[in-house]
Amino acid sequence: MKNNPEDKKILKKLLKEAGITVDGSKPYDVAVHDEAFYSRVLRYGALGVGESYMEGMWSSKQLDNTFVRVFEARLEDKIKSNAGLLFYLARSRIMNLQMGKRAYKNAQSHYDIGNELYGPMLGKTMAYTCAYWEWGAKTLDQAQTDKFELVCRKLGLKRGMKVLDTGCGWGGLSIYMAKNYGCEVVCFTPAKEQIKFIKANSKGLSIKALDTTWQDFQTTTKFDRIASIGMMEHVGPKNYRAYLTKMKSFLKEDGIMLLHTIGGNKSSLDIDPWIGKYIFPGGVLPTIKQLSTAMEGLMIVDDWHNMGFNYSKTLLCWYNNFKKSYPSLDHDKYDRRFYLMWEYYLLGTSALFRTRSAQLWQVVLSKNGVAGGYRSIR
Amino acid sequence: MKNNPEDKKILKKLLKEAGITVDGSKPYDVAVHDEAFYSRVLRYGALGVGESYMEGMWSSKQLDNTFVRVFEARLEDKIKSNAGLLFYLARSRIMNLQMGKRAYKNAQSHYDIGNELYGPMLGKTMAYTCAYWEWGAKTLDQAQTDKFELVCRKLGLKRGMKVLDTGCGWGGLSIYMAKNYGCEVVCFTPAKEQIKFIKANSKGLSIKALDTTWQDFQTTTKFDRIASIGMMEHVGPKNYRAYLTKMKSFLKEDGIMLLHTIGGNKSSLDIDPWIGKYIFPGGVLPTIKQLSTAMEGLMIVDDWHNMGFNYSKTLLCWYNNFKKSYPSLDHDKYDRRFYLMWEYYLLGTSALFRTRSAQLWQVVLSKNGVAGGYRSIR
Repeated sequence: MKNNPEDKKILKKLLKEAGITVDGSKPYDVAVHDEAFYSRVLRYGALGVGESYMEGMWSSKQLDNTFVRVFEARLEDKIKSNAGLLFYLARSRIMNLQMGKRAYKNAQSHYDIGNELYGPMLGKTMAYTCAYWEWGAKTLDQAQTDKFELVCRKLGLKRGMKVLDTGCGWGGLSIYMAKNYGCEVVCFTPAKEQIKFIKANSKGLSIKALDTTWQDFQTTTKFDRIASIGMMEHVGPKNYRAYLTKMKSFLKEDGIMLLHTIGGNKSSLDIDPWIGKYIFPGGVLPTIKQLSTAMEGLMIVDDWHNMGFNYSKTLLCWYNNFKKSYPSLDHDKYDRRFYLMWEYYLLGTSALFRTRSAQLWQVVLSKNGVAGGYRSIR
Repeated sequence: MKNNPEDKKILKKLLKEAGITVDGSKPYDVAVHDEAFYSRVLRYGALGVGESYMEGMWSSKQLDNTFVRVFEARLEDKIKSNAGLLFYLARSRIMNLQMGKRAYKNAQSHYDIGNELYGPMLGKTMAYTCAYWEWGAKTLDQAQTDKFELVCRKLGLKRGMKVLDTGCGWGGLSIYMAKNYGCEVVCFTPAKEQIKFIKANSKGLSIKALDTTWQDFQTTTKFDRIASIGMMEHVGPKNYRAYLTKMKSFLKEDGIMLLHTIGGNKSSLDIDPWIGKYIFPGGVLPTIKQLSTAMEGLMIVDDWHNMGFNYSKTLLCWYNNFKKSYPSLDHDKYDRRFYLMWEYYLLGTSALFRTRSAQLWQVVLSKNGVAGGYRSIR
């Protein structure tokens, strides 16, 4: 790829609109280590920004704050409303297509990356979803435990209730519900390593952990409660209604479901191309419009909590844990490029939630509306 | 209109499915005083039920509980899924159309009905929207004051803030905000009587009350906060986006808007025909789907509170106040038919909210998402 000096001029100007100086002295300024950076970004867009970071072509002392400035300046909107620039970018990309297919290697499947990475990063609870900081937690472990407790209270759990935990990850919530509320929990995830982990950590508790997907999961049990935490992001917009219809069919007439999901501000059928390629293949952020369309006539929305800002802090904790544990990881498996990829992912998404460019919702659903009215818990 | 004995058989069977016996002894059973009732209902549907009530053709000792049973039995769904019955009803209605146009007199415009009716019914606050009972209020006045306070806290009001109160009714909230939070309030309503009332009750307060509609309202002021309480129900689905766009244009960059509205479970472009004819001509209940479609890309949803059950109790209070004050009202103006109409309206809608067939939402909106995250207030 040839470096076009015009590209450098344009990108520097765009960054300046966000208050970012190339090779400037502010901690959120970017240092460019390879002149090919400019053309890469203009030709590959968001994908090019991330991939050039992974290749060490640029850096920032405070990557999250660099992103905050980019998101707050709405650079994407500015590009879209600048016809001359759009034309320039389109031409760059057409030239790129003519140059043949690209050669970056796809990421491994996100959840196979290994417990030796996730363990230190996620902490004791192994919860890989947004924690809850609004009850004053001082540590990530406490904030994740507070999130479990928040979910249990919102679901109004009682001893002996049958609970389904869909897409349960390492089972932290299932274990919490069985241990602290005496519930009979069924949970599932398609990841075999996660199932093994849950079985090893739930001895003596009423937890049935199944190695399956939501499409394949079948049961004749009717559940009092369903928790769907960090699952909808992987379901895909065309399946939202099917997913909710299936969950509803498992629910008792007076049952309650809690849907915890990242949310997007603008309906789309795909995700940021870098995130889609390296972090969450097939992931899509649902919007209120998409979800409410899927819910209408099916379930009543009893509550809709936006707690997205909590994710910004959670992701920073994960990043700090990752950074601290990185020296002791196997660097053949987790090489420098992986480190930069993971840093870019955690700090970029932290900035996304800090600038309110993405949301985190907990939605309480029931078949007929909770009798006597639902009282929100915060 | 000829009475068809088949109609009586069908309607009695339908009511039985809701556990209601014609001329039975339970307080929620219905007493039929005119045999024409059955054919009227089957031919005119929801409109026929209400109009026959206004004419004294039937009654119930506990009309709200009669409605609760009808809503909980989902009679409407049952009728729609019964092909034979649907055909029978369609035929009845075609015959009805051939009988020529009907002669029921339309209601007066709802808000012109007169302060002598609304005063005793609504109580001291004159608030004609859902009250808030969840802080333990023992009286309607307290529950309405708690609602005002809830709105102010959700908006995070501070002394000196400029607040716009759209569709302000008798100005209870505007007065509360100016008096208790020291805000500079601009409010509007197209009802001249309401403007007079506000002016008489806001001496010495920073309240500018304008006699206008949301379409005609213009200002160069940028507001810190906007309260839209019980307004969206009158805006109409095709105007939701225009309404929100206009409100957004009045809002400061870090402003917050609170949208308080009745909500429907199923998207529609009209309302129950009886309610539409006698109570709220042109009213439509928005759904989450319709609202979120209008909001997407325009405003960020910071919170979505469903407090619908509170309306059931509020409407019962209004009914009891109305009933108590009725003897002292002018019976030439408020005749027996008006009494029955008003009773049917208040008790029917109370049952609607009690059975969760309608919702009451308070939605917090901002231009970019509240910086630092929005904390829900309940």
